[in-house]
Amino acid sequence: MKNFEYYNPTKIIFGKDTIKKINKLIPQDKRVLITYGAGSIKRNGVYDQVIDALGNREVFEFGSIEPNPHFETCMECVKFIKENNIDFILAVGGGSVIDATKFIAAAFFHENDAWEIINSNIKIEKALPFGSVLTLPATGSEMNSGAVITRKETKDKRSFHSELCFPQFSILDPLVTISLSEKQVSNGIADTFVHVMEQYLTFPVNNQISDRFSESILLTLIEEAPKVFANPNDYDVRANLMWAATLGLNGLIACGSPQDWATHMIGHELTAFFGLDHGVTLSIVLPGVMKVMRDEKSEKILQYGERVFGIKDGQREDRITKAIEMTEEFFNSINIPTRLSQVNLNEKDIDTIVQRMIERKWSLGENGTINPEKVRLILTDRL
Amino acid sequence: MKNFEYYNPTKIIFGKDTIKKINKLIPQDKRVLITYGAGSIKRNGVYDQVIDALGNREVFEFGSIEPNPHFETCMECVKFIKENNIDFILAVGGGSVIDATKFIAAAFFHENDAWEIINSNIKIEKALPFGSVLTLPATGSEMNSGAVITRKETKDKRSFHSELCFPQFSILDPLVTISLSEKQVSNGIADTFVHVMEQYLTFPVNNQISDRFSESILLTLIEEAPKVFANPNDYDVRANLMWAATLGLNGLIACGSPQDWATHMIGHELTAFFGLDHGVTLSIVLPGVMKVMRDEKSEKILQYGERVFGIKDGQREDRITKAIEMTEEFFNSINIPTRLSQVNLNEKDIDTIVQRMIERKWSLGENGTINPEKVRLILTDRL
Repeated sequence: MKNFEYYNPTKIIFGKDTIKKINKLIPQDKRVLITYGAGSIKRNGVYDQVIDALGNREVFEFGSIEPNPHFETCMECVKFIKENNIDFILAVGGGSVIDATKFIAAAFFHENDAWEIINSNIKIEKALPFGSVLTLPATGSEMNSGAVITRKETKDKRSFHSELCFPQFSILDPLVTISLSEKQVSNGIADTFVHVMEQYLTFPVNNQISDRFSESILLTLIEEAPKVFANPNDYDVRANLMWAATLGLNGLIACGSPQDWATHMIGHELTAFFGLDHGVTLSIVLPGVMKVMRDEKSEKILQYGERVFGIKDGQREDRITKAIEMTEEFFNSINIPTRLSQVNLNEKDIDTIVQRMIERKWSLGENGTINPEKVRLILTDRL
Repeated sequence: MKNFEYYNPTKIIFGKDTIKKINKLIPQDKRVLITYGAGSIKRNGVYDQVIDALGNREVFEFGSIEPNPHFETCMECVKFIKENNIDFILAVGGGSVIDATKFIAAAFFHENDAWEIINSNIKIEKALPFGSVLTLPATGSEMNSGAVITRKETKDKRSFHSELCFPQFSILDPLVTISLSEKQVSNGIADTFVHVMEQYLTFPVNNQISDRFSESILLTLIEEAPKVFANPNDYDVRANLMWAATLGLNGLIACGSPQDWATHMIGHELTAFFGLDHGVTLSIVLPGVMKVMRDEKSEKILQYGERVFGIKDGQREDRITKAIEMTEEFFNSINIPTRLSQVNLNEKDIDTIVQRMIERKWSLGENGTINPEKVRLILTDRL
C-alpha cells in the first residue's frame, strides 16, 4: 500500500426532507448568495425549500451557471459578490454549480488574474465559506475540494484543488433527484462508475480496503441502475445512487492506491472541443483505455472481472476481454453512448484531440505511458 | 435507507515513516503534553521518533494511562495540564490512551464534576486541541469523536461523544505495529470485527454502500488475519489491518443503517467486573448475541453468511447456523477466547452481569429487545 493523507471536513446531511436543516448550518447574520444553473430548481420545488430554510437572512441569487462552468461566468459572479458584500455562498445544483462555486469562493480573494489559480496551480490562501444542496448525483464535488473550470476563449477545461475548497456542508436529499431526466441519471451513473475506475483500475499494490470499497461502489451502480429506470420513484434506489456518487470521489477510495485519470483527461478535451456531456465522454473513452492499456492493467482487470462481474472461468486473456466487453455493455444498458459515431464525431475529430495532446506534451495514466499515439489508438477504437 | 449525518474532520497521515510529519501538524509555539500508556513506546522507538519530530517545542509527559482508562487517572492528568499551562495534547498509544486524551481534553474546560460529561451526557462546549500517533489498531478512536472511560470506584464503564473530540490529526504508521504481541493483534482484529458487526448485523434497510463497505472490512480481516500471524513483518498486511480498524469505527459504515451495540454493552460489564480485555469480551459475547437474536437478525445473517463466508447452499436455518459457527471459528482461528470458561468465569458471574442490567434497566440491541433475561441466555450459551 502507498502512503497517503486523507482529510475531508465536509459535513454530510443525507436523507428525506433535509433541506430545511440549512437554517442551522448557516449563521443568521450571513448575507447569502444562492448559485444555481439553468433554473430547474425553480420548477422542482428545491428553490422554494431553500428560501424557506434561509428564513430572514439577506439572500441574493446568481443563476445561469452553465454545465462545464466557464471561468468567464465565475468572474462575473465574483464581481456580483463584491458589489453586494456577500459572505456565504450556497451552491444549489449539480457538480457544475458546486465546482463553479468553489472557484468563485477562491477567486474572490485572489488579487491577480484568477485564472492562475488553475493555470499555475497557485496555493489558495483564503476562500469564502460555502455549502451545497446537491440536486444531481454524479461528480462527488459536494464532498471534495476539487473543481473543473473551462475557459471558453481558449477551450481549456482544467482542474484545481484546495483544502479551503471543501463545502462546509452538503445536503443530499434523494427525493430531489426523482425529477431528473433519464439522460441526467445515465450521465451521473457513468460519471460515478468512471471516477471509481480511475482510482481502482491501475496496478495492484495490495490495498484490500480501497479495492473492495471501489468494488462495492461499482456493484451498487450495476445493481441499482436497472432499478432506477424501472422504478424512478423508488427512494432507496435513489439514495443508494446518490451516496455512491459522493463516495466515488470524496478521496476515500484513492487512499493508498495509484490513480489513472486518462479517461477524464481525454474526455475533458472532447467536451472542450465538441461540447459533449462529461458523462458521455467517459463512457465512450473508458472501454478504449481498457483495451489499449490492457497489458499494464491486466491484474486489476482480472480482479475487477471476477469480483464485479463474476468472471472466473476461462483463459486469462479471454477473461480480460470479457471484463472490457461487460464494461461497455453496462454503459449500453443505461443508454449512454459508447462510440464516437453515436455523437457524430469522426477520424478528423480524433486528429484535433491528438494534436492538443501533442501541444500539451501530456503523458497520461498511472504510469505516464499514454502518449498521443496511444490516445489516437484509444479514440480510433471508439469510432 | 435511514437519514443520517456524517462529519469527520480528522486528518489521517498514513504510511511508513510518517511520525516525523508531526512537526508540521502542531504549531511551533504550543506547549505539548505527550500522553501514553505502560511505556512500550519507550522500548519500540516510537517515543524517540515523536520527540525528534517535536523539535524545539516545550514537551511534557503523562504516562501510565491504563487499558480501559480510569476517570481518576484522567482527572490527575487534567490537574497536570493546568499546572503546566499545556495547550496541545499528543496521544501516543492505542485506543485507551486516545480515549483518555479525549476525555482529558473536554474535562479541562469543564467547571463542575467532570464525570457528568459521561453520566449526564452534558454537551461539551470546548476542548483542548489534540492529535494522535496510533500504535495499536483496534478501536478506531484515532478517527472518531467518542471515548469509553471507566470509573474505578463504581465499576462504571461508559462512553461519551462530542464533535469537539475528534483528533485534529492521527498518524498511522503500520511499521509501528510490527512490535505488537500476538495477543494485542488478536484483540485488535476481534475489536474491529465486532465494531463492524454492531453496525452491520441488524436488519436490512436497503443500504447497499454501508452493507458492502462493512463486508469489505470483514473480508479484509478474514483474509489478512492468518497472514499477520504467519508473516508478522509483512508491511502490507499490517497496513491493511490498520486501515481496516480505523474505518471500522469512523462513522462511515454506520451511515444510513440501524445499529446494535449489545455485544459492546455486555462486554463493557465483563471488563468492568472481571477485568477482561475488551477484545476478549467481544469475541466471547458476539456469537451468543447472534444465536439468541438469530430471528430478528436472520436476513442480515444470511447476507453476511453468503457474502463474507460464501455460504450459499442449504436450508435457510442451516445457513444461519453455519454463519454463526463460522464467526466463532474465525475467532478461534486467531486464538482469542470465545467461551467464558476459557477466562475462568462461571454461572455465578453471569448473575452479576444480569443483576447490573436489571439495575440499569437497559434494553439493548437495534430493536431494544435484549432484556436482562436475554442477556442471561446469551451469556449462558457462552459458558
